[in-house]
Amino acid sequence: MGKVYLVGAGPGAPDLLTLRAARLLERADIVFHDALVHPGTLALAAGARLVDVGKRYGKISTEQRFINRALIEAARTHETVVRLKGGDPMIFGRAQEELDALTEAGIEWEAVPGVTAALAAASALGISLTRRGIARTVTFLTPRVGRDETSSEWLPAALGADSVVLYMAAGASQAIARELIAAGKPAATPVALVESASLPEEKRFFTTLAALEAQALPRAAGPVVMCVGEVFRDRHAVDEMAHESLMRQTASERCQAS
Amino acid sequence: MGKVYLVGAGPGAPDLLTLRAARLLERADIVFHDALVHPGTLALAAGARLVDVGKRYGKISTEQRFINRALIEAARTHETVVRLKGGDPMIFGRAQEELDALTEAGIEWEAVPGVTAALAAASALGISLTRRGIARTVTFLTPRVGRDETSSEWLPAALGADSVVLYMAAGASQAIARELIAAGKPAATPVALVESASLPEEKRFFTTLAALEAQALPRAAGPVVMCVGEVFRDRHAVDEMAHESLMRQTASERCQAS
Repeated sequence: MGKVYLVGAGPGAPDLLTLRAARLLERADIVFHDALVHPGTLALAAGARLVDVGKRYGKISTEQRFINRALIEAARTHETVVRLKGGDPMIFGRAQEELDALTEAGIEWEAVPGVTAALAAASALGISLTRRGIARTVTFLTPRVGRDETSSEWLPAALGADSVVLYMAAGASQAIARELIAAGKPAATPVALVESASLPEEKRFFTTLAALEAQALPRAAGPVVMCVGEVFRDRHAVDEMAHESLMRQTASERCQAS
Repeated sequence: MGKVYLVGAGPGAPDLLTLRAARLLERADIVFHDALVHPGTLALAAGARLVDVGKRYGKISTEQRFINRALIEAARTHETVVRLKGGDPMIFGRAQEELDALTEAGIEWEAVPGVTAALAAASALGISLTRRGIARTVTFLTPRVGRDETSSEWLPAALGADSVVLYMAAGASQAIARELIAAGKPAATPVALVESASLPEEKRFFTTLAALEAQALPRAAGPVVMCVGEVFRDRHAVDEMAHESLMRQTASERCQAS
């Protein structure tokens, strides 16, 4: 009987993987990975069979059942099984379903933490999420329920915290801004959006809830985290004009790139 | 002119450092590190002068001013300066003061994210902070203001979130439980305490707010994160009796160790 390692792949850049994760990949026999894991990270698993479990299957429920079963079967025939998840495994993944299924099947497992996207975004912005005197609480959340659904259950947590980082915010930033303002968050609250944090194509935008509510941002090419709170006030005088000019610039970059 | 790298050392275990952090330490000329950084991590900086800025100076304000000035001076005489902070640099440290001082002095800098203690605790517990159907928001906070002060400004964020992880909770868990219950959090809310997450001496306790309020835990030997919320319900039937027996066990272990 083998052992399953539920491993955080970090936020994107292959060198933001932990040493422990790198060593596990190097001795893995089989690796089940999310769709967004960097090819440079997967290259570390030179002796392993790679199974992409991120995009191949239709409905989430089917997919999760498949992954659970595949992990159990793999542990019965391989010594070192790695389940490689984007960011940290214990936040906004389906870790618990997988760990519970392994426990129930009597398979030994271990979780290896990773750098989650919010922390990569904070480093990219050069902004402390808990800047002394401004923020002493930070909340991570996702407004998404299923693939295309959203819900407002996250609002109390977002309103109570000084700094808020919303995961999987691509395409939803205008709706999020609208909900936060309607719930009483000041419209002038600063927002920073980070797309593809830690990767060469990383983009950063400074704006406000009011500006986001007024006009949606162009479609993002990579994963986006949306950071809301006073600490995200850009100290280099970005105002709503700058927001609009950034939007134009981004749209034009996208056109040139395609 | 050199460059200053503000680097996350991760939660404790030396192999939970990122590859990028390890490479920076290997080529560092000088490293300013916190007191709690593992000797195995510092050993990577074989060619660097090591400066412990974590415990040598009395008052926090003096210490921070000293660190800011030391970083600026180091960057003027060394190529690669590493400021190594426990966990992630952008959460519950004084990152912003240091980055602002460097910017003001015209020194180039870069932040390198790390695995923060809350994520190491979640992996140690084998519990997803955002278990589907139970929690979709997670808040990180610290109840400490100065070295010995606490404040209740963190309560709205703690009450609004499904899962809460309190940093620097050692010695404060009884007071925190009391405040949370007084503010309306159900007394039966599960709590998990993780001491020295990711290190060989790591300890985990499952309890409830009510049990913690009734009796303080013994003094911890290492840093403690306190995790509060439904996801932290131990599925192995830990009740208040178990909490008491764990406390006795811990006290007796401590006596034997000393």
